[in-house]
Amino acid sequence: MIDHPRILALDTSSQVSSVALCQAEMLVAESALNLRSTHSQSLLAQIDALLVAAGWTLGDLDLLAVVVGPGAFTGVRIGVATIKGLAQVLNLPIVSVSSLAAVAMNLPLLSRPVCVLIDARKKEVYTQQFQQQEGFPRPLSQAGVITPQKVLAELPGNVCFVGDGVAVYRDIILGHGFEPQSMAPACSHAIQASKVAALALFDYSRGLTQRAEQVVPTYIRPSDAELNRQNSNNG
Amino acid sequence: MIDHPRILALDTSSQVSSVALCQAEMLVAESALNLRSTHSQSLLAQIDALLVAAGWTLGDLDLLAVVVGPGAFTGVRIGVATIKGLAQVLNLPIVSVSSLAAVAMNLPLLSRPVCVLIDARKKEVYTQQFQQQEGFPRPLSQAGVITPQKVLAELPGNVCFVGDGVAVYRDIILGHGFEPQSMAPACSHAIQASKVAALALFDYSRGLTQRAEQVVPTYIRPSDAELNRQNSNNG
Repeated sequence: MIDHPRILALDTSSQVSSVALCQAEMLVAESALNLRSTHSQSLLAQIDALLVAAGWTLGDLDLLAVVVGPGAFTGVRIGVATIKGLAQVLNLPIVSVSSLAAVAMNLPLLSRPVCVLIDARKKEVYTQQFQQQEGFPRPLSQAGVITPQKVLAELPGNVCFVGDGVAVYRDIILGHGFEPQSMAPACSHAIQASKVAALALFDYSRGLTQRAEQVVPTYIRPSDAELNRQNSNNG
Repeated sequence: MIDHPRILALDTSSQVSSVALCQAEMLVAESALNLRSTHSQSLLAQIDALLVAAGWTLGDLDLLAVVVGPGAFTGVRIGVATIKGLAQVLNLPIVSVSSLAAVAMNLPLLSRPVCVLIDARKKEVYTQQFQQQEGFPRPLSQAGVITPQKVLAELPGNVCFVGDGVAVYRDIILGHGFEPQSMAPACSHAIQASKVAALALFDYSRGLTQRAEQVVPTYIRPSDAELNRQNSNNG
């Protein structure tokens, strides 16, 4: 294990693609782009531009980190494929990071439980509850995909909300009796790759890394393509 | 006032220079560079690269936001001068943002008071206490520059700490009886320009903008150059 590993971290599980270069806990460079286009067109260029800005090359890297979902299928696939490719070429370890835990990093030090809501389209959210503990979110529940109404019906009254699903379902959250002060402000919903790097460093320090072939996306629910195939098989 | 203003926000008050483009509350693009060089060499290039990535031009902007300090003298001067130049050329309003409030944005939803500590060198910190309220930090005290020991002696026991001074003075904070769980994790100390934009949008919505000639840096303490001049005048 390297003392102050140089980390490339990325998240493409939502519409915003975020890439960060960190040396251990120190941020070196970070960029976030909300391009409304497929990440495949821009992700490698974004990584390359960041390396140039930092004066780093791919050969300087010690550790790779990627958000494996849940989130947008295509985005997750592109992020995971890109990191796996880099890991194989550079012979580097990977840490897989949950999008839900990465979003929870945006509400540090809260003593109340944190409920992450990521918009999953189709009137559902990806959701999980966490408790902040020593700088990192510890899961209080399993990750799931469910309607916001079902999530909200089972939450404790003192919970706080964060994630892009909060903006989408704000009125429904209020309708269930939660206060406006329980919802993180709009600028706190997006995943930051530098926080993905922080989660990865924590796992790395405990030896919890993976080889490229071990990294798999976390979709939680089957893709439309799989659902269509299942339906046609059943029909 | 424009409904969904296109905002350019920047912070160069610390070693990390952060630039963001937002349309109202929506992040369009953001970059952060920790270059250990003077911001003057890279800031305009960083702004330009972000505009290109977003597909925007300077002519698309409606509002400018800048962190006016307190912080590194040279960095603050470069950020303020750059924004004032852009405001004059583009005839745009500016919102001045405090570095201390911008850092406090990194601890949303806390019910406990937030104490921001920004390393001011010379064994001092820039500091201010805030209470989070409806998504924004409200000042509980005046901004000041003071030794961390003096700050810590007067704080309530339930306070939380954030800012790059926390990493520098961690042992002193612990020595004053505050828990490790009262300190934000390392990845939460840096100012994000997207949060500067959020603070600016809040002021903009209340008509609190300035013209270029009204924007002045907030140094709190005199620069070394001024101290030297005062000393030589007195000597």
